[in-house]
Amino acid sequence: MSLQAEHIADQLTRIRERKPLIHHITNMVVMNDTANITLGIGALPVMAHAIDEVEEMVSLAGALVLNIGTLTPELVESMLRAGRRANERSIPIVLDPVGAGATRLRTQSALRLLAELRIAVIRGNASEVASLVGVASETRGVESISVSGEREDIARQAARQFGTAVAITGARDVISDGERLASVENGHPLLATITGSGCMSTSLVGAFLAVEPDPLLAATAGLVAMGIAGEIAAPKSGGPGTFRSHLLDAVASLTPELIVQGQKVSLTDHA
Amino acid sequence: MSLQAEHIADQLTRIRERKPLIHHITNMVVMNDTANITLGIGALPVMAHAIDEVEEMVSLAGALVLNIGTLTPELVESMLRAGRRANERSIPIVLDPVGAGATRLRTQSALRLLAELRIAVIRGNASEVASLVGVASETRGVESISVSGEREDIARQAARQFGTAVAITGARDVISDGERLASVENGHPLLATITGSGCMSTSLVGAFLAVEPDPLLAATAGLVAMGIAGEIAAPKSGGPGTFRSHLLDAVASLTPELIVQGQKVSLTDHA
Amino acid sequence: MSLQAEHIADQLTRIRERKPLIHHITNMVVMNDTANITLGIGALPVMAHAIDEVEEMVSLAGALVLNIGTLTPELVESMLRAGRRANERSIPIVLDPVGAGATRLRTQSALRLLAELRIAVIRGNASEVASLVGVASETRGVESISVSGEREDIARQAARQFGTAVAITGARDVISDGERLASVENGHPLLATITGSGCMSTSLVGAFLAVEPDPLLAATAGLVAMGIAGEIAAPKSGGPGTFRSHLLDAVASLTPELIVQGQKVSLTDHA
Repeated sequence: MSLQAEHIADQLTRIRERKPLIHHITNMVVMNDTANITLGIGALPVMAHAIDEVEEMVSLAGALVLNIGTLTPELVESMLRAGRRANERSIPIVLDPVGAGATRLRTQSALRLLAELRIAVIRGNASEVASLVGVASETRGVESISVSGEREDIARQAARQFGTAVAITGARDVISDGERLASVENGHPLLATITGSGCMSTSLVGAFLAVEPDPLLAATAGLVAMGIAGEIAAPKSGGPGTFRSHLLDAVASLTPELIVQGQKVSLTDHA
Repeated sequence: MSLQAEHIADQLTRIRERKPLIHHITNMVVMNDTANITLGIGALPVMAHAIDEVEEMVSLAGALVLNIGTLTPELVESMLRAGRRANERSIPIVLDPVGAGATRLRTQSALRLLAELRIAVIRGNASEVASLVGVASETRGVESISVSGEREDIARQAARQFGTAVAITGARDVISDGERLASVENGHPLLATITGSGCMSTSLVGAFLAVEPDPLLAATAGLVAMGIAGEIAAPKSGGPGTFRSHLLDAVASLTPELIVQGQKVSLTDHA
Repeated sequence: MSLQAEHIADQLTRIRERKPLIHHITNMVVMNDTANITLGIGALPVMAHAIDEVEEMVSLAGALVLNIGTLTPELVESMLRAGRRANERSIPIVLDPVGAGATRLRTQSALRLLAELRIAVIRGNASEVASLVGVASETRGVESISVSGEREDIARQAARQFGTAVAITGARDVISDGERLASVENGHPLLATITGSGCMSTSLVGAFLAVEPDPLLAATAGLVAMGIAGEIAAPKSGGPGTFRSHLLDAVASLTPELIVQGQKVSLTDHA
């Protein structure tokens, strides 16, 4: 356990030393927050979606974040183009399949990105990931309403089917790469009261992917950082509006020591 | 009066029980705030504008919010497509004609949406609504500069002309459905110092429309909720930046009791 | 010195008296903040990018802000169309060449806007401006990483080459119109921890350009306002999230007296 906690803390130190560029092709709703949280953790965000520049931009990046929250077919083309270049250069990609299961466009676009690109991590809620592997579930808009089956099983199934690490976030986060299963108990209920806390987690996973070659460990680290930041921010907050401000403060205030002391991670092989 | 206050409070309870999905096709400036305020009142926001998915998305929704703040002709096509499906399914629509009167594109797009769709509520400022009914007015960008005539008369005229409820917001809000006139005295001057407080009000009206079949009462409830939240947030704030955070806290903290005690509504027939 | 301080303070008074409309064609990441800071200083923001309306909208404006942070070729066409109309009407333009140097699309789009439009002020970071005049530099995404040469020289060179005032912001801001050199020592390190503080500065420069015919003085005033607001906000803040809220409070709280007392400006001829 303590070895692992130190490994996560080391990743934070590396982000702050290297300041990797995290190229986002992402949704318009939470773009400001995802940029600010990327800065807060110590990386450099850039949001760039024009098909004419995404290959050039991603070539400068340490990781690529693809988020379909306000997708259009044109945006998916830009994602594919950036993603292919990222794959050529071995730049890791994290995919956030926002709203998969709610509409065909979302489900099919996520599946197409998974089919045509080598994705390192999928970060979604339970129903989004379930919809990608055909498990019965209900996504209302971008919210997970219900899923049949255990989240650990869905994560493992998706990890094996797509050859990625899969992080399903909720009150408890589960991360699988098909063989190993990590579980993160950090976090706070206020995280569910603001829009885009999932998208922000995905951006943090992107930042950790830029410095950590093991996708399961990078995803775990990103979710630990988000969870601890939520725990720090919550007692200072009077509701979702002030929580959002304090959350960004808290991410910027994270230290390796806070990570080591605060992390509630367990890592096992799948049963 | 107290019957009415309780009716508004009941609407809030219903939103929190049902958690209706509120599909927004809306402007990019205030998208984060409109999503967060929708969550705060207890509903689920989704922002989706791709023409390929809007019909499917709106079919899941309890109400549709159309806001032309950063419109393009393509976006108006998506609005029409979503709106027709909403009409088929009797899903109520609220229209925010941001900047109508400032440019022909805005005025004509708002009029086209009103001509081709059955809209439940129009929520705008005085000059925007005046421009839709041909009353002399000046809209500078998205601000109401001047209007000739009483706002009650403009609201009634627009309500009759378009067959909708019409809410004109300002220091005092007036809401007309052509027969009845509601007036809301809640609010705070700080609401006028942040961008998009009108758009946020429109999102709240959308949330109330999802649970209340009488458009005049739903619009009134949305504006009461926004006004009381502003009153709660203002004394905690040092200016527009902190006010915006406290406003989102305050919306999330609203209770039926706060509504009953705080509401300053009058409802009469038109003179 | 005191004459100059009073001149800046007078500009603030004029903004608040005239409430000029500031038309933005700008990036989606910081759109909410740029709108709110424009309101805070006392002007009226409008974000409008549809090619069908930009000429009409800019005709109502006191200044035009062009920011290529999330550019597409279509958006650049809208910028050109709005800019030509602004030039015909002698409405001043400020250009923010976000990420110039990072991709060809960004560098070439900025150069095209400079070639085809009469721009009053360029506001950028050192590497962005350096890339426009062919000085060796590194832009990582939208961050200035390194520049060869003194910033004063780069600003002067760009000012002469493009016939504009050029403001390079950083820990110390330098502003040149090719003949005169202003330097602003106001500001706080927290400004560098939030995304879009540069974009927000550009919006303030736009507001001051609407009331001040001398572009160097308008740019200087905008950067002084931003810097003093940062100094006021910083001690109230626990990190970047709360800083952003307090920054918007602080801009709204600026008075001519605070400007006169707080400004750290020097103005000389170029050596």
